[in-house]
Amino acid sequence: MADGPPRQGEVTVLDVPEVTVSARHKGFPFAALGRLATDVSGTLDDFLTPILVLKNAPLRHNLATMARFCAEHALSLAPHVKTTMSPEIASAQLEHGVWALTLATPSQVRTFRELGAQRVVLANELVDPQAIAWLGAELTENADFTCYCYVDSFDGIDVLEKELPPGGRPLPVLLELGVEGGRAGVRDLGLLPSLAERVRSSAVLELAGVGGFEGIIAGGLNAGLLADVREYLRRLRDVADELLAGFEGEFVVTVGGSAFPELVAEELGPRWQRNRPVRVVLRSGCYVTHDSLAYQDFRRLMSTEYRALPLRPSLELWGRVLSCPEPGLAILDFGKRDTGVDAGFPVPLHRIRRDGSEVEPAPPGELTALNDQHAYFRGELTVGDRVGFGISHPCTTFDKWRLFPAVDDAYHVCGMVQTLF
Amino acid sequence: MADGPPRQGEVTVLDVPEVTVSARHKGFPFAALGRLATDVSGTLDDFLTPILVLKNAPLRHNLATMARFCAEHALSLAPHVKTTMSPEIASAQLEHGVWALTLATPSQVRTFRELGAQRVVLANELVDPQAIAWLGAELTENADFTCYCYVDSFDGIDVLEKELPPGGRPLPVLLELGVEGGRAGVRDLGLLPSLAERVRSSAVLELAGVGGFEGIIAGGLNAGLLADVREYLRRLRDVADELLAGFEGEFVVTVGGSAFPELVAEELGPRWQRNRPVRVVLRSGCYVTHDSLAYQDFRRLMSTEYRALPLRPSLELWGRVLSCPEPGLAILDFGKRDTGVDAGFPVPLHRIRRDGSEVEPAPPGELTALNDQHAYFRGELTVGDRVGFGISHPCTTFDKWRLFPAVDDAYHVCGMVQTLF
Repeated sequence: MADGPPRQGEVTVLDVPEVTVSARHKGFPFAALGRLATDVSGTLDDFLTPILVLKNAPLRHNLATMARFCAEHALSLAPHVKTTMSPEIASAQLEHGVWALTLATPSQVRTFRELGAQRVVLANELVDPQAIAWLGAELTENADFTCYCYVDSFDGIDVLEKELPPGGRPLPVLLELGVEGGRAGVRDLGLLPSLAERVRSSAVLELAGVGGFEGIIAGGLNAGLLADVREYLRRLRDVADELLAGFEGEFVVTVGGSAFPELVAEELGPRWQRNRPVRVVLRSGCYVTHDSLAYQDFRRLMSTEYRALPLRPSLELWGRVLSCPEPGLAILDFGKRDTGVDAGFPVPLHRIRRDGSEVEPAPPGELTALNDQHAYFRGELTVGDRVGFGISHPCTTFDKWRLFPAVDDAYHVCGMVQTLF
Repeated sequence: MADGPPRQGEVTVLDVPEVTVSARHKGFPFAALGRLATDVSGTLDDFLTPILVLKNAPLRHNLATMARFCAEHALSLAPHVKTTMSPEIASAQLEHGVWALTLATPSQVRTFRELGAQRVVLANELVDPQAIAWLGAELTENADFTCYCYVDSFDGIDVLEKELPPGGRPLPVLLELGVEGGRAGVRDLGLLPSLAERVRSSAVLELAGVGGFEGIIAGGLNAGLLADVREYLRRLRDVADELLAGFEGEFVVTVGGSAFPELVAEELGPRWQRNRPVRVVLRSGCYVTHDSLAYQDFRRLMSTEYRALPLRPSLELWGRVLSCPEPGLAILDFGKRDTGVDAGFPVPLHRIRRDGSEVEPAPPGELTALNDQHAYFRGELTVGDRVGFGISHPCTTFDKWRLFPAVDDAYHVCGMVQTLF
């Protein structure tokens, strides 16, 4: 590995592609068409609706807050970039000293590798033959590139062995620990030693640690859920303890999600690490923009037992009232094409009246349905009013936008966010 | 309007953008990176998973079937292009003699106007000041361009009048008739004559007809729903009858959706048209690719009372088994980032076994959940198996892909589909 991969805290700047604004970038001002995105100025008033905006101050707050939290608790951050798939936001994360970028699919790894990502956690089993062959070659040809992936079965190991080029640099793999009724990952702890042995015996694989995802644990938002997550993290800790015996080099223990970072710090923080050669890697993705509903609810839950990380929602979707066809019903100009609805509908925050530009609080009311391109607001609005909504679940909102502006507190454009879905 | 807009049946070829395949085009073969999309060859086996494919034969069948249906029933087709936002598919629709392209938002109109669309139905209220000013200028400066939009309120008319440039070519508007509990559109029929009069008295607007959307009518998949749709179409017909009295020129009556075209033909077909100056415009969008569940259910419902239009599903999402962590549970490598789930989960159709290339029927089983990037299949599969799924609701699947291949029956690439979301 020549000089070794860059250490935590080193800045790896991504090669952010230039993008020219075109007619296909929904919401952009007509005056911006044909210009470089980075040259677009103006305010929210200059954009068509619907338009998504990223508020810069809460984004910066979240970046700094999570960096501080990880430093305090001896956690390495490998933010899940599948949330945003944004080179600008991933670059900001790298500038905040993250250890690696996490991605979910081989196509995503390829995208960020092309931008210059040097250390990647593919938080997933890798089974696609073409992707395995590519990754094997990429590792062998680039000493400064590292990519971890998961394994959870002998079948999966067979596939990796079959496709990895012999004699190349071994692929570092993490044993995934799942939960009953959950997603991937080993259920039977008794299987882990033999899986580990199988990896160790492979010439093309390297056992690098264990991984899991506490965010997959289902349950109501109450103390019982926190107890279940704690129990899972302890199981993962025990697994790591066992595999660590006789292990040489750095052993990665990675968990993820933006719901329970405080529990991760408690169960896998400095007290457990005790100068052992472990690197505990947190893969939170949604923390960076946070949201106004689903992840906000987790913050509230955490605050019942912890000094909860004070993340701030930074995404706002602005729409306009097209029609008030019945008393107390307003139809707005955005829909499922513009925001995720899988974790609740967007939450009304602000209103700008027709012909106005003053940002007021939204009137009482809520969205009750969304079609592809329309939203149904129950409450008192007027045709032409604009309403700014906080979104729920950043992942399924980012993938609805190719390009959108970052704005300051006065809604002046102060940056651009592209996504590479 | 100089020579007038092109007549139905004239071919308007769109300016389909060239696209170079890059790392960000998920699923594309490594060998395709850097090449023009139109130069990509190969088969399904050459693509990474997940990958969406459009089967060419059923697409062509649907294009021809709908063209024949509209010709038989004296309907003009203005396919809703918001479904696909694809210049390739919209071009194929234009080549099949459609009368106009329908779009849902000003940003979408702008996108297709840039590609050369000449007649557009914006099946929506138009309230965005910047978009109104642009459209007014576009109409005035381009005699061969037409764009209709909806109005359903005096407020909405006020906004249009305020923003349209005085002295320009009038904007043709359609009065939208809604349904109680539905989306936009006038509820109180008594309001229509005064709205029509208000439009007629405007120097910048032109009353061009009426529009509605029978697809918004809620109900179980039974005869009662069909009766409600028929009732709505008759109400729209009565409204048109009334407004037609004393009308000069062509009067547009437009309804939409891909669920009930047979009912539209029955209620608004040649018998009603009787050589009057009406153009009945069907705005179906999903017909062109059809699907394997939601719209397929509507076909089944229609066939209880009609010789239903025999549309064929053409979209397949192929994924790969990453993990079989519990007996009878397989985790695949696609999720909500790759397919719509708002009208049901994808339906398993085919399987290709690991190391194989023969397409077999999928084993018994079904998807029971989807995360952002994972799917849960309950049934017997093996790590590495690929499974092809039919999707439900094309609109929310198209917007998950920037570029994907069209394939022939043997899954050889025979074209490319880009989307401009």
